[in-house]
Amino acid sequence: MGLPVVGMVGGGQLSRMTHQAAIALGLSLKVLADATHDSAALVANGVTVGDHTSLDDLRAFSEGCEVVTFDHEHVPNGLLEALEAEGLRIAPGSAALRHAQDKIVMRERLAALGIPVPPFTPVATVRDVEGFAKHVGWPLVLKAATGGYDGKGVWVVHDVEQAAEVVASGVRLVAEQLVPLRRELAAVVARSPYGQGAAWPVVETVQADGICVEVLAPAPGLSEERALEAQSLALRLADALEVVGVLAVELFETADGLVVNELAMRPHNSAHWTIEGARTSQFEQHLRAVLDYPLGATTQTAPWVVMANMLGGDDDGDLDRRLHMLFGRDPALKVHLYGKVVKPGRKIGHVTALGDDLDDVRRRAQVGAHYLRTGTWLED
Amino acid sequence: MGLPVVGMVGGGQLSRMTHQAAIALGLSLKVLADATHDSAALVANGVTVGDHTSLDDLRAFSEGCEVVTFDHEHVPNGLLEALEAEGLRIAPGSAALRHAQDKIVMRERLAALGIPVPPFTPVATVRDVEGFAKHVGWPLVLKAATGGYDGKGVWVVHDVEQAAEVVASGVRLVAEQLVPLRRELAAVVARSPYGQGAAWPVVETVQADGICVEVLAPAPGLSEERALEAQSLALRLADALEVVGVLAVELFETADGLVVNELAMRPHNSAHWTIEGARTSQFEQHLRAVLDYPLGATTQTAPWVVMANMLGGDDDGDLDRRLHMLFGRDPALKVHLYGKVVKPGRKIGHVTALGDDLDDVRRRAQVGAHYLRTGTWLED
Repeated sequence: MGLPVVGMVGGGQLSRMTHQAAIALGLSLKVLADATHDSAALVANGVTVGDHTSLDDLRAFSEGCEVVTFDHEHVPNGLLEALEAEGLRIAPGSAALRHAQDKIVMRERLAALGIPVPPFTPVATVRDVEGFAKHVGWPLVLKAATGGYDGKGVWVVHDVEQAAEVVASGVRLVAEQLVPLRRELAAVVARSPYGQGAAWPVVETVQADGICVEVLAPAPGLSEERALEAQSLALRLADALEVVGVLAVELFETADGLVVNELAMRPHNSAHWTIEGARTSQFEQHLRAVLDYPLGATTQTAPWVVMANMLGGDDDGDLDRRLHMLFGRDPALKVHLYGKVVKPGRKIGHVTALGDDLDDVRRRAQVGAHYLRTGTWLED
Repeated sequence: MGLPVVGMVGGGQLSRMTHQAAIALGLSLKVLADATHDSAALVANGVTVGDHTSLDDLRAFSEGCEVVTFDHEHVPNGLLEALEAEGLRIAPGSAALRHAQDKIVMRERLAALGIPVPPFTPVATVRDVEGFAKHVGWPLVLKAATGGYDGKGVWVVHDVEQAAEVVASGVRLVAEQLVPLRRELAAVVARSPYGQGAAWPVVETVQADGICVEVLAPAPGLSEERALEAQSLALRLADALEVVGVLAVELFETADGLVVNELAMRPHNSAHWTIEGARTSQFEQHLRAVLDYPLGATTQTAPWVVMANMLGGDDDGDLDRRLHMLFGRDPALKVHLYGKVVKPGRKIGHVTALGDDLDDVRRRAQVGAHYLRTGTWLED
């Protein structure tokens, strides 16, 4: 039918759910996976197993793709530049993606754009950290400049000794003020090469141990003014960085306003709720954006939508039996399983509840995710 | 994760969309396709190419499947019985499926159950047809007892000569009164082996040349009493025939009430609207039913949902360009493309519109499907 071929590097759940969206658009996602048992590799037809840090593997994979996109940030930027130089269309492009790959690059660029970020400085020595602590006080945050995710690569250090331990690990670091925050928000938008932007409602993300456990859409009690500010900031950032695809901007809400925490340039956990909760899901939108199709409507489909992550427990339980029990208790809950081997703390699925009453919707999502994880019902 | 394996015989769009639903449930549909370019074979990982009329191929395909289900009715019933005798779980079972495979069997059973059907009789000779015409008059309908779909295998004959032509073709036939109908409806339900039933809102189906072109959910102006009657009839039928999975009951609405036209025991065109338009889609529900999971909520997600089929035009146009134009005009329309080679009249996709105003929603669906097919906008 002459429809384009989209390649996605990475075989995780983001690829898996993007493939699901691709099917409706008449496409079949080509996936570059690490292994045949990767989440997306289990369900997609066009799977290549290869190394996303190998230029040869990336080049072979990209053959015949109209555009190549990503379910993670781990492809070395130099390889992306090399592929672009060979004429491959990559979305987001290497120049944009650097800001999601390197926190120092990101912080410096955002500061230059006048976008609020926490006080920060690159640090190489304990002395650097000490100097920075004089301005922001202890405790402060040390972050690996590259490669962190889900709380990994982030350390809250309370004194010089703790800082020394982190510095001794040898990773490139940025130090940041530990921002006194009320809560975390996310503004997720998409941008196409044509320059069209589209923003979903701003959400509240609830974290535990640095991992997102729950997303509330829209963010409860957020003023329209503040919501518009967050959406505008994200759209402006997408434009300034020339992002193509989904851009997730993780924000701290503080007494003094919004501060940008992290960026991701791909479908993001904070927008999984859009699968049922918005007229266009982030996965469809990401495909539309990278293909330069006009973007879809971002209208919310119910007054309240709550997504709860299902983190792996200590054993893999009997998921089949648990599904029976959960579906019996809540026939309207939507379950998404990623086909992943269960490991403690690993994101192995999520559930989404929708409805008119936030407390009820939130409770249903929490009960569902907890039950699938543990096989026990949360007490009232 | 210990989740079951579901096999689906047939690689058409129903398999394709069932695979999409399977992904969320942590599954990957195993598909028995006729060819690697079949609609579902393009997007699923576990594809076997084989002959669904070969017991050997069916047996090999079913290896390791917890349950095997179907995207069409063309597997000879005797083969299904043989597989069941070998211990394979088939859903729906061969005894139920016969009623969707053979119109004479279906008509006789429904009549015996006291469910309203048009006056009918099996016919083998022109004299049989003539005799039947004395009761119901000309024109009347001749139908192939087996193998018909989308208007194929259905003939409206006006006199003995026309009847003689059809009889001469040698196919097994049933003659039916040409029912004077107001409109066509469909009551789609699902039933699990446990015996749980769930019904979606009753819809109006709009046909052209015997092919469904549009589905309006819920059926406009249908009284609650009549809607309940249709749902009850379908649920009762599902129980009586021990259907497992989705059962679509196509109905004629006449001056005297409802009359059953056809049955299908699989996901059905008249419920494609449920993908976005109901809390649980027919594809997820079919999987839940065949796996004997508790069934999902069938609540409609918007006051009006209209699906319009996209039938192939005379050429395959430039679908990529048409998608650009259509998405630009209607960012909230949902498009589903099946990846099929375009042939005139062939179902190659569908679009779904949702909203508060039926006229508007219907117009959007019609405009979208027409544009994707022809590359021209319907005039106002």
